[in-house]
Amino acid sequence: MTVGPAATGPPDPGAAGGSAVPEEILRARAYLLRSVEPPNRRLVRLIEEYGPVEAADRLRRGAVPDALLRAATARRGTDHSTADLEAAAAAGARLLVPEDPQWPVWPFAAFTTAESGQLAPPVALWARGPGDVSVLADRSVTVVGSRAATRYGLHATAEFASALARRGVTVFSGAAFGIDAAAHRGALAVGAPTVAVLACGPDRAYPAAHTGLIERIAATGLVLSEYPPGTVPGRLRFLVRNRLLAALGAGCLVVEAGARSGSRRTAADSAALGRPVMAVPGPVTSALSVGCHELVRSGQAQLVGRPEDVLETVGRLGVDLAVPPAGERRPTDGLAAATLAVHDALPARAAWPPARIGEAAGVAADGVRAALTELEERGLAEYHQGLWQRPARRGGP
Amino acid sequence: MTVGPAATGPPDPGAAGGSAVPEEILRARAYLLRSVEPPNRRLVRLIEEYGPVEAADRLRRGAVPDALLRAATARRGTDHSTADLEAAAAAGARLLVPEDPQWPVWPFAAFTTAESGQLAPPVALWARGPGDVSVLADRSVTVVGSRAATRYGLHATAEFASALARRGVTVFSGAAFGIDAAAHRGALAVGAPTVAVLACGPDRAYPAAHTGLIERIAATGLVLSEYPPGTVPGRLRFLVRNRLLAALGAGCLVVEAGARSGSRRTAADSAALGRPVMAVPGPVTSALSVGCHELVRSGQAQLVGRPEDVLETVGRLGVDLAVPPAGERRPTDGLAAATLAVHDALPARAAWPPARIGEAAGVAADGVRAALTELEERGLAEYHQGLWQRPARRGGP
Repeated sequence: MTVGPAATGPPDPGAAGGSAVPEEILRARAYLLRSVEPPNRRLVRLIEEYGPVEAADRLRRGAVPDALLRAATARRGTDHSTADLEAAAAAGARLLVPEDPQWPVWPFAAFTTAESGQLAPPVALWARGPGDVSVLADRSVTVVGSRAATRYGLHATAEFASALARRGVTVFSGAAFGIDAAAHRGALAVGAPTVAVLACGPDRAYPAAHTGLIERIAATGLVLSEYPPGTVPGRLRFLVRNRLLAALGAGCLVVEAGARSGSRRTAADSAALGRPVMAVPGPVTSALSVGCHELVRSGQAQLVGRPEDVLETVGRLGVDLAVPPAGERRPTDGLAAATLAVHDALPARAAWPPARIGEAAGVAADGVRAALTELEERGLAEYHQGLWQRPARRGGP
Repeated sequence: MTVGPAATGPPDPGAAGGSAVPEEILRARAYLLRSVEPPNRRLVRLIEEYGPVEAADRLRRGAVPDALLRAATARRGTDHSTADLEAAAAAGARLLVPEDPQWPVWPFAAFTTAESGQLAPPVALWARGPGDVSVLADRSVTVVGSRAATRYGLHATAEFASALARRGVTVFSGAAFGIDAAAHRGALAVGAPTVAVLACGPDRAYPAAHTGLIERIAATGLVLSEYPPGTVPGRLRFLVRNRLLAALGAGCLVVEAGARSGSRRTAADSAALGRPVMAVPGPVTSALSVGCHELVRSGQAQLVGRPEDVLETVGRLGVDLAVPPAGERRPTDGLAAATLAVHDALPARAAWPPARIGEAAGVAADGVRAALTELEERGLAEYHQGLWQRPARRGGP
């Protein structure tokens, strides 16, 4: 059942947010979400084995493996699920569960092959906004970077986000200060939906200064969180949240990161989940680009200098292939060395016989004649009464 | 025999610039240098086979393979060698030849394995300045980049050059406007010798505006050229000169290069000669960093963000290994996830019993007690009458 007024979704009843999901599953998963701090792979396995309803019942009764019981003890005694679903609905959020057709099955499939137990999938996600994350994650990029970004970083982020959003790539980020906000705003600026994954409850906006931004994101895109209503963010929750960002983006783009930053942790999660990591370089004089440069140097990230480079990595093979920057073509392009030598030797303010040009260029008579003919055809040499010279320059200085 | 007043060299007679080289060899090589436009691998082979004196004689008589004869025709009839040696001496330059102990044998050995015929070694080099290039090239880096460099590029170049020169790495460059000049100046600023390789005769300074800079380079380092006195630079000669820069540096550092630039050509020569190519990244918004970024993206260059990174590449193995930038250590470093969760849950403006902290953190009672103990030991938690809280913050805001 859809919880919350914002969950309208497309008219197709099968695809509408959770409309086909029985209430008892939503309640069971809401309970599990609060009773064990994510990520917990044992809980995921318990649900896989028994289904969410029986898994919740077993946890309530304490009929689960010891390790899981220890992880859950502090909260499992109280079932907040009804209150949580109501509080979320009041905030316009619904509970997105794996039983829902909108569940991002493929992005989260990476968790099953990840080695680290910290990289467990979420049991459910609180979701606010009309977006269908299973669709939005298809062509997507997770943008991470410093909260204390520079003007350069903010500018580059907005440029990349806008350009990618314009090409149908969904920007995922964490709604934090700095790079995160610039990424969301870059997408919103071109009218594209963007997805924020928060480290607090769905009824909260963190940072508070971004309440408006988060509302705008929820209006057309999606705001996700695996934390129950009322949860405040903490450092651990940011780290835990980052794995969801890592999984949901088809690639991870790091824009500005200090020598040591949470962004690099998200990048590491992305890599562990098999996602390509990309880093935007910056001035070597900027402490905030050090992390990006180190990621590239160590081979953990590929350098991306243009949105096209990102598109090539996260886009569709063959469709979004980037063409290397072309640069200007010069009229002397493709000339053989001897011809170029003759070209260089051609006087501009005088006219010389071929022999003199040959001497200056160090090219033999035969070569000089052939070269002069070729240069004349290209408009690079002019002939008059046995003498050769450069053509008068056309246009600007 | 040493030509020119600047060629003093160390007192060891065997090492002094060309003092052991017979006049006839110098004359033969000076003749060959002017008679065939470099690079010419056939000429190099002819000299290898017959020695410079007989090779010169054969070329003079026309008793050389047709292809070589064609390449030489325009000039071989006149022997300018005496005039060239005198003109060079008047300008303070000597002729450095392979028979001289200062000849950079190892740097130029790379030419023998290069596939391209364009990558032939020089027949000799005009040299101005007290430097011994065979020594200076040992730990060295060739710095290339745009003539129309940005302030950022000039600053980064000077910083890299100074830092490397201070660590005993010789900076080689082309004395051009922009990056080249910044590289030389960066080395000179810390009192280190630097080497300029020019695309004109040793009696000339190109660009003319750098006459003073080139004099300063020659005063303590070395100015090299394979072009005879009086030769003016041309586009081909810059390209040809670049192969010498590529060979003489133990690595090639590209600082700013547009999508298409001569610097990239030098980088390609360096790679062909087995030299590591390094690129300094810059703002993605700068057209002059596009070439550097493409070099890294395409795998032709490794990104270097700090002089230490260059040192690691061109320096001595094991001695100059760069330590990755460390970043700040945080007091919560190394805490287990549960301990971090407890830390995050600790109230700052109140004091809670362990049970309440456990509930907030989602950590069981055992875990909470262990975590609080560890946090207290680290000074991250304070205990008073059964209640826990964060310690009052010390120092700044």
